Amino acid sequence: MSSERLIYLPLGGAGEIGMNAYVYGYGKPGKERLIVVDLGVAFPDMDSSPGVDLILPDITWLKERRNQIEAVFVTHAHEDHVGAVAHTYDQLKAPIYARSFTSNIARRKMDEYGHPEDAITTVSAWPEQVTAGPFTVGFLPISHSIPESSALVIDSPEGRVIHSGDFKLDVTPVVGEAFDPALWTEVCKDGVKALICDSTNVFSPHAGRSEATVGPAIEKLVSEATGMVVATTFASNVARVKTLADAGARSGRSIVLLGRAMRRMVEASVETGVLRDFPTTVSPENARAIPRENLMLLVTGSQGERRAASAQLARGKYQGMEMKEGDTFLFSSKTIPGNERGVIRIINAFSEMGVDVVDDSNGDYHVSGHANRPDLETLHDIVKPQILIPMHGEHRHLREHVKIADGKGIKGVLAVNGMMIDLSGNTPKVAEYVETGRTYIDGSVQIGALDGVVRDRIRMALNGHVVVTVILDENDEPLGDPWCEVMGLPEQGRSKAPLVDVLEADLSQWLGRAKPATLQDDDKLNDGLKRTVRQSAQDEIGKKPEATIVVSRLS
Amino acid sequence: MSSERLIYLPLGGAGEIGMNAYVYGYGKPGKERLIVVDLGVAFPDMDSSPGVDLILPDITWLKERRNQIEAVFVTHAHEDHVGAVAHTYDQLKAPIYARSFTSNIARRKMDEYGHPEDAITTVSAWPEQVTAGPFTVGFLPISHSIPESSALVIDSPEGRVIHSGDFKLDVTPVVGEAFDPALWTEVCKDGVKALICDSTNVFSPHAGRSEATVGPAIEKLVSEATGMVVATTFASNVARVKTLADAGARSGRSIVLLGRAMRRMVEASVETGVLRDFPTTVSPENARAIPRENLMLLVTGSQGERRAASAQLARGKYQGMEMKEGDTFLFSSKTIPGNERGVIRIINAFSEMGVDVVDDSNGDYHVSGHANRPDLETLHDIVKPQILIPMHGEHRHLREHVKIADGKGIKGVLAVNGMMIDLSGNTPKVAEYVETGRTYIDGSVQIGALDGVVRDRIRMALNGHVVVTVILDENDEPLGDPWCEVMGLPEQGRSKAPLVDVLEADLSQWLGRAKPATLQDDDKLNDGLKRTVRQSAQDEIGKKPEATIVVSRLS
Repeated sequence: MSSERLIYLPLGGAGEIGMNAYVYGYGKPGKERLIVVDLGVAFPDMDSSPGVDLILPDITWLKERRNQIEAVFVTHAHEDHVGAVAHTYDQLKAPIYARSFTSNIARRKMDEYGHPEDAITTVSAWPEQVTAGPFTVGFLPISHSIPESSALVIDSPEGRVIHSGDFKLDVTPVVGEAFDPALWTEVCKDGVKALICDSTNVFSPHAGRSEATVGPAIEKLVSEATGMVVATTFASNVARVKTLADAGARSGRSIVLLGRAMRRMVEASVETGVLRDFPTTVSPENARAIPRENLMLLVTGSQGERRAASAQLARGKYQGMEMKEGDTFLFSSKTIPGNERGVIRIINAFSEMGVDVVDDSNGDYHVSGHANRPDLETLHDIVKPQILIPMHGEHRHLREHVKIADGKGIKGVLAVNGMMIDLSGNTPKVAEYVETGRTYIDGSVQIGALDGVVRDRIRMALNGHVVVTVILDENDEPLGDPWCEVMGLPEQGRSKAPLVDVLEADLSQWLGRAKPATLQDDDKLNDGLKRTVRQSAQDEIGKKPEATIVVSRLS
Repeated sequence: MSSERLIYLPLGGAGEIGMNAYVYGYGKPGKERLIVVDLGVAFPDMDSSPGVDLILPDITWLKERRNQIEAVFVTHAHEDHVGAVAHTYDQLKAPIYARSFTSNIARRKMDEYGHPEDAITTVSAWPEQVTAGPFTVGFLPISHSIPESSALVIDSPEGRVIHSGDFKLDVTPVVGEAFDPALWTEVCKDGVKALICDSTNVFSPHAGRSEATVGPAIEKLVSEATGMVVATTFASNVARVKTLADAGARSGRSIVLLGRAMRRMVEASVETGVLRDFPTTVSPENARAIPRENLMLLVTGSQGERRAASAQLARGKYQGMEMKEGDTFLFSSKTIPGNERGVIRIINAFSEMGVDVVDDSNGDYHVSGHANRPDLETLHDIVKPQILIPMHGEHRHLREHVKIADGKGIKGVLAVNGMMIDLSGNTPKVAEYVETGRTYIDGSVQIGALDGVVRDRIRMALNGHVVVTVILDENDEPLGDPWCEVMGLPEQGRSKAPLVDVLEADLSQWLGRAKPATLQDDDKLNDGLKRTVRQSAQDEIGKKPEATIVVSRLS
C-alpha cells in the first residue's frame, strides 16, 4: 500500500454559500502537491460585518504551503468562485487556469489590482487536460447561470474525482453549453472515486426549469408594457441578459446597459464569442432622445445593492435616466436570503413613483442556476461515484445531501471547512482538522474576521460611544474638569439635562474622591473612569456605551 | 352643508407593516373630536436602527391635541397594534377600550410601565357599542391569528365606517371567533361610507387557508418523530399553540412552554376563557425526568430573535433544556421578510447538532393570518363600501389594493402616513398633510428617528471612530504631541506601522505648521485636525473614520 494519499480540504464554501476555495492534494502526508479549485468571495452585511467591503476565505494554510501549490483552477466567473483570485495572488503566486470567458473576467480583476494578466492561462474544454504535478485536470462543460461553467475532472494515481463546480441540468441554456449527458457518461464510465457536489438547491423538491422557459413570459411582459421597461438580473447571467435584450429589441425598444458589471459582462461575452447576435446598445446620453415606449434598460442591482443601478434609479436619476409613472420595472431574479430589505426598499420607492414592479413571486421571470434535488440525483446516477462529498452549501444543505447519498448506497461525507478528508483506498476518513476562518477586505487592508475590528464596530453601533478626557498635572491631581464627548447617544436622559453634563458631573465627583494611589495608576484610573461613565450613562439613558478614556499627564 | 367633517389620518401602518396608529375625527376643522385606533410598535434592525429597542409612530400631532382625544380603541393584541399603548400613555392619558383578551394583554403592559390598569375598559363584542364624543364604536369579531380580533364599526353623523383591523376569512379558526358573513352583511346592510382595510397579503393570489388545515400535517409530524419535538410559532397564535399542544398530547408527549411570551399568552387565553382544554403543561425542571420521545417543547423565537428560546436552544442549554441529535425542530411559522439571516443561523446550528429541522417551505405547517387577494375581494363584496382606504401595508401594498378597488367601481384612496383624508360628502379629498415620523425607544429614552443618534451609530459601524486629543498651553502652543485612540479600525495599514502612530505623526506635522490664527480659533483648529486625521487614515487604511476632536486649552 502506497504511503501517498489523496486529500480533499475545503477552506470556504462548505458551511456557507459563498467564498468557495477547495484544495486537493496528492503525495506523502505533509508533503502533498496541491491544487486549489476556485478562490471566491462572500459579501458582507450590516448584521455581522459592517463597513467591510469583501469577505475572503482565510488562506493561511495555503500560504504556509505555497511551495506545494501546483496550480489554481477556476470553474466559472461568478464572484464567489473568482472574486478572490487577485486579492490572494501575492500570497500564493500560483499559476491560474481557466476557460476563455472565465479567464477574460479573471484577467480584468488581476489587472485592476496590478497583477500580471499572464498569470492566468486559458484552457480549452475537455478533452484538453492540464498537468499539475501528480494531477491531470480537465474542464468538463456543465450548464449554469453564467457561460462556460465547468466541472473539473481531477485524475491522480488514486483515481478520478469529479468536482462539479456550480451546475444545473439544462439542455436549452440559451447562452453557454447545454448539459451533455452522453459526454458525462463517457467521462465517468471507468469509475469515479468521488463526486464533490454543489448542494445549493438540495431542498428544492421539483426538477429545475430550463433557462429557455422564461423567454415567453418576458417577451409578453416587455411587449405589453406601455412605458419604459427596466429589467434587472445578475449581469453574469448572460443568457438572461440576452433573453431580455432580445425581447426588448423585438418589441421595438432600444437597449441601454446601466451599471459597470452589466457592460463588462456583455463585453467579455462578445470578446470571447459566447454571445452572438446581441442587439446594438445605446448609451444613456443617446437614450434621452428616444421615446420611453421604445426604451429598455438592463440594469445591475437585482439584490438591492445600494450603489447599483436599480437602487440609484429608485432614489432618483442615474446616468441621466430616471423612472416615471407608467414605467415597468422587472426583477428577473430571485432575492438571495438576507437581501430582502434592500429589495423591498426599492420596490416601494418605485411604487411611490407610480412605477409598476414585476417580480418573480409567481415563478414566471426567473429560473435558478443550480440543480434541484431531482437534478442532483440525476447527476449522482450518471457519475455513479463511490463517494459523495457535498460542497457549496450551509451545514444544513451538506447534511441533507449526505442523507440523499446514503439513501442511494453512495458513501456520503459531511466535510465542513477545515476538515481534511483522506480519499485514499476504499474508506474515506478525516485526516485532520485545519484552522480556517474569514479574512475581511476593509478599505485597503486585509483584517481577520475575529481580530476585533468588526466586533468593536458592532458594539459602537449597538451601544454608542463616549470619550472621556482627563488631564492630570505634575502632582497627579486633576487639572480642570473631566470632559465628555458622545457619539450615537441621546442628547438627554432621565434628568432632562444634557447627557454630557450629567456624565461629567458624575466623573468629577468620582475623580474628586479618588485616592492618590488610583490617580497615579494608569490602569486603575482608566478602569475607574470607564466604570463610572458607563454606570452614569446606564442610570441616565438606560444604556452602557462603549467608552474610550484619554488621560493626559502633564508631568 | 355642515361645516363639520369626518377625517381619517394614519400616523403609522400606512407605508410600513408595523406600528399601526390610525386617527378618526369628527367636528369643525381643527376642532375635531378624535379617536385613535391602535397604538403599536415596529421592530428595529441592524441595517437602519442599530441599538434601538422598539420603534413607535411619532404621535406629536396627537400629543398637541390630547384634549381632543375621546378614546383609544385596540383591535387586537398583536404588538404592532397594542405594543405602544403603555409607552404613549403619559403623553395622551386617554381612556383605552378593548375586548377581554386584548385588555388582558394591554393591562399587563400598562402594569409593566407603572400605569393604572383601569385606564383600560373591557368592552364586549357587537352589538355593544361605546360612545366616544360624536362617535359610536363597536367591536365586530373577525378571524385572525390571535383570539378576539375585531374590526371596528365607527358611526358618526357622516355615516358608518368599517375599520377592518387585521383579518382573514376563516370559518374554522380552531381558537377565536369564526368569520361570520351573515353578521357582517347585517352590519353593512344600510350602507358603509368607507372600509379602511388590511392590505398585507394583497399580492397573494390564492384564497387563504383555514387554521384548521395545518392540524393533520402537524399531527403526523409529531407522532412520527422519534426524539424530542420542539415547535416554534408566534406565541400570540393561540390557535396554533393549541394545535401543536394537542398533537403533542395525542402522541403521548408532555408539553413544556419555553419563553416568557409563550407562557403569558397561554395564561391570558385561559384567564379570559378563549382557550379551553389546553393540555396540562410541565415545567422545564420536571421535564428533565421525562424521556425525550415523550416531550414536546413549544418555544418562542420563530423569527430568529437572539434572546428568544429558539435561538437560545440553538446556542446551547436554555432553562435546563437542550437539543440532541435525532430531535425534531419545527418552524410552524413564516419568516417575515428581513428576518431570514437569524432564522437561517438557527437552522444551521441545529443541523450541526444533528437535529432535523422542518419548516414551512412546502406550505404544510403554517397558514397566514391575513386575507389574500381573493379574500379581500370577498370582504369588499360583503361590505360594499363607497370608499376603500387601504392600510396595514407598505406603499406597494396600498397602491395595489387601490387598483383592485378602482377595478371594482369602489373609490380607492391611497393614504400614506400623514395624509389626512376628509371623508365628508361624496368625494374624499386630502384635507392636509401632517408631519409624521418614528420615535425610537432606546434604553430608557425616547429619541426621534431623525435626530442623528442612529445615523451616528451607523457611521461608526461603517467607518470606525478615531479620537484625537490635543492640549494647548497658555500661549496656544501645542503641549506634547497629539494623541489618537481608535475603535473599529485595523491595527495597521499600508505602512505596516501601528495606525495610531501614523495618524499621530501626520497630526503632529500639521500642528507644527499651523498658523497661530488657526491654533487660536476653535473651529479652524477642530476642522483642520479632523480633515488631517481622516485624510491620513484614508491614505493608510483606505477609509475615512468618524472623528472626535478634543482640544484642551490650559489657559
